[in-house]
Amino acid sequence: LPSKLPTVGTTIFTVMSKLAADTGALNLSQGFPNFNTDAKLLDLVEKAMRQGHNQYAPMPGVPVLREAIARKTSEVYGVNYHPDFEVTVTTGATEAIFAAITTVVRPGDEVLIFEPAYDSYVPAIDLNGGTPVYVTMTPPDYAPDWAQVREKITDRTRLIIVNTPQNPTGRVWTAGDLAQLADLVRDRDIYLVADEVYEHIVFDGRAYHSLMSNPTLQERTFICGSFGKTFHTTGWKIGYCLAPKELTAEFRKIHQFVTFSVMTPMQVALAEYLQEPEHYLSLSAFYQRKRDLFADILTASRFRFKLAEGTFFQTVSYADITDEPDYDLAIRLTHEIGVAAIPVSVFYHNLDDYRILRFCFAKDDEMLLRAGERLIKL
Amino acid sequence: LPSKLPTVGTTIFTVMSKLAADTGALNLSQGFPNFNTDAKLLDLVEKAMRQGHNQYAPMPGVPVLREAIARKTSEVYGVNYHPDFEVTVTTGATEAIFAAITTVVRPGDEVLIFEPAYDSYVPAIDLNGGTPVYVTMTPPDYAPDWAQVREKITDRTRLIIVNTPQNPTGRVWTAGDLAQLADLVRDRDIYLVADEVYEHIVFDGRAYHSLMSNPTLQERTFICGSFGKTFHTTGWKIGYCLAPKELTAEFRKIHQFVTFSVMTPMQVALAEYLQEPEHYLSLSAFYQRKRDLFADILTASRFRFKLAEGTFFQTVSYADITDEPDYDLAIRLTHEIGVAAIPVSVFYHNLDDYRILRFCFAKDDEMLLRAGERLIKL
Ligand SMILES: CSCCC(=O)C(=O)O
Ligand SMILES: CSCCC(=O)C(=O)O
Repeated sequence: LPSKLPTVGTTIFTVMSKLAADTGALNLSQGFPNFNTDAKLLDLVEKAMRQGHNQYAPMPGVPVLREAIARKTSEVYGVNYHPDFEVTVTTGATEAIFAAITTVVRPGDEVLIFEPAYDSYVPAIDLNGGTPVYVTMTPPDYAPDWAQVREKITDRTRLIIVNTPQNPTGRVWTAGDLAQLADLVRDRDIYLVADEVYEHIVFDGRAYHSLMSNPTLQERTFICGSFGKTFHTTGWKIGYCLAPKELTAEFRKIHQFVTFSVMTPMQVALAEYLQEPEHYLSLSAFYQRKRDLFADILTASRFRFKLAEGTFFQTVSYADITDEPDYDLAIRLTHEIGVAAIPVSVFYHNLDDYRILRFCFAKDDEMLLRAGERLIKL
Repeated sequence: LPSKLPTVGTTIFTVMSKLAADTGALNLSQGFPNFNTDAKLLDLVEKAMRQGHNQYAPMPGVPVLREAIARKTSEVYGVNYHPDFEVTVTTGATEAIFAAITTVVRPGDEVLIFEPAYDSYVPAIDLNGGTPVYVTMTPPDYAPDWAQVREKITDRTRLIIVNTPQNPTGRVWTAGDLAQLADLVRDRDIYLVADEVYEHIVFDGRAYHSLMSNPTLQERTFICGSFGKTFHTTGWKIGYCLAPKELTAEFRKIHQFVTFSVMTPMQVALAEYLQEPEHYLSLSAFYQRKRDLFADILTASRFRFKLAEGTFFQTVSYADITDEPDYDLAIRLTHEIGVAAIPVSVFYHNLDDYRILRFCFAKDDEMLLRAGERLIKL
């Protein structure tokens, strides 16, 4: 059977989490919390299941959840999406991103992506016959380089994928970034996919600018969100896509045949849990404290870093310590000091010589302290 | 935004379920039970959630569930799939089917499907640039016509999709059918997708022949299964794909970027629930009683039918009653007598003049009796 994705191997997240488990290392690689979900949310799931919410949800999502998402979006960003025609519940942001890319991209289309980039974008582009075109962002700022973007846009550019707050770099795009992007796409037939799964994890009082907050962008953007990062439920795989009516109509045709619908009892529970804004508004402070705790320890290490602006990831440079490639170092650190991290080079399509690691700080304080103690020995 | 699926509209399942809800009709259209899941299974989900099984499952599925699926498959069919390399947990059979089709089909490939056919196959073929080629099965037997199949296989035939027990017709393929199919594909470069979600709903002591039970077929087949139909959890969207190692390796590359992984707590719960074979072995008798209850009433009606051999669907012909097209009659019955059904013509790609309805009998006895009373008035 000839491969549709010949270059794809086991993802780094699987590789590192497995290595951490096999060696008993502290797993700061794959992005997920090591603490449990709020018992209140679990109570709501239990209630929904016992009440019989175990059969097919409507294809676009349970109505009360679509309404709750629309209400939250309106309250947080002041932008209105119609729950019936512009909100679709998906199997995590991964399915939302896959379906959005599939909705837009056809053979021969070019798709701009900003590197370092999450690993699911390119395979989805490939499967639809598109060609990824890479815009490079460089440390320590990882600011989008607009001259480079302008240069790489062609008549065949059909889609641009944006991720803010950005995984793995922790960068949060500014209103200025969005204005630059809007200028570039305004008169062109270009759509946007915005991966905004870390929307509620933004630090130091910084304003978060969703792509929907710029009207030129909003009208052509598939906003992909997720409850996994926000409610400590990465294993539930419940996300959503917000897009103007015409885009949503086409998006749903794809969603309908990819998974059809999403786990019913969790949808019912999330709808009720979303009623309390504190449940998501408290998240930035929660993770800022963890970022700072982890960073305070690392200050005593030979790693160099700029504090993450958002997400639950901290990247660090180790150029002063060793010149091993980051993949090799990640493996070695797991074995030798018992801390697993992600080598950031894997987020680039062709980069060998890179010396940046990503640590996930969505961990209880004890684990962060123990990891810190091990890392400063380096 | 030009449509990738220009001919797709709202599915008949959504249309009829919504009409039933709006009119207060008894909903015997979309295939889902109106009774709740076993409380024992819900208890297991609760336990898994409280224990903290709420973060990412491994991409191919939780190991204990893959092992449980492999064990059940070995016990029921005597065929061994390796849990690590040949079993993948998916977001329902829908994702399994989508991912399997995407794994195999490339632009220009032809895919044989047997009509009447479930509505998700053709869009998945279209999105991958393939061409569906239709083999027609006709009532009342809906037996595959092997002369027709032989005629339609060409050098470009790359995949054949089989569904047994078959939705909507209730037909169960025989060992002879599988032998015929094996003869046709043996020396050809053709793969198979087997939609076997009704594997545990087979009536009258009939033997069920999974495609895996024929070795020539097994080595080239993606078996797509689901817990939704078997454990009364259609809304959980948890299924799986069984395929030989090389096929699974390519299948997982697609799965990884379509949804990545599947709802963790339900996987953990299903693994334990599967330990008790009675939970699935009892299902045929459970539904046979319902089929017979419903059929007994219909005997007093002017509908004509052959008892379903499997699935929880009963098709009926109304040619003696009216010559309305089945779509029109389905709408009218919902409004006028308060029973919603699915017009079987929608399972064909171009059929106007058809007089067959499909009723779902996965309903409590009271609902079946009330629906029967209304239907015999016709
Ligand atoms: C789907 S596994 C990857 C989780 C994640 O978002 C990350 O670690 O970057
Ligand atoms: C995914 S909705 C359709 C359910 C079903 O399998 C059917 O009614 O045929």
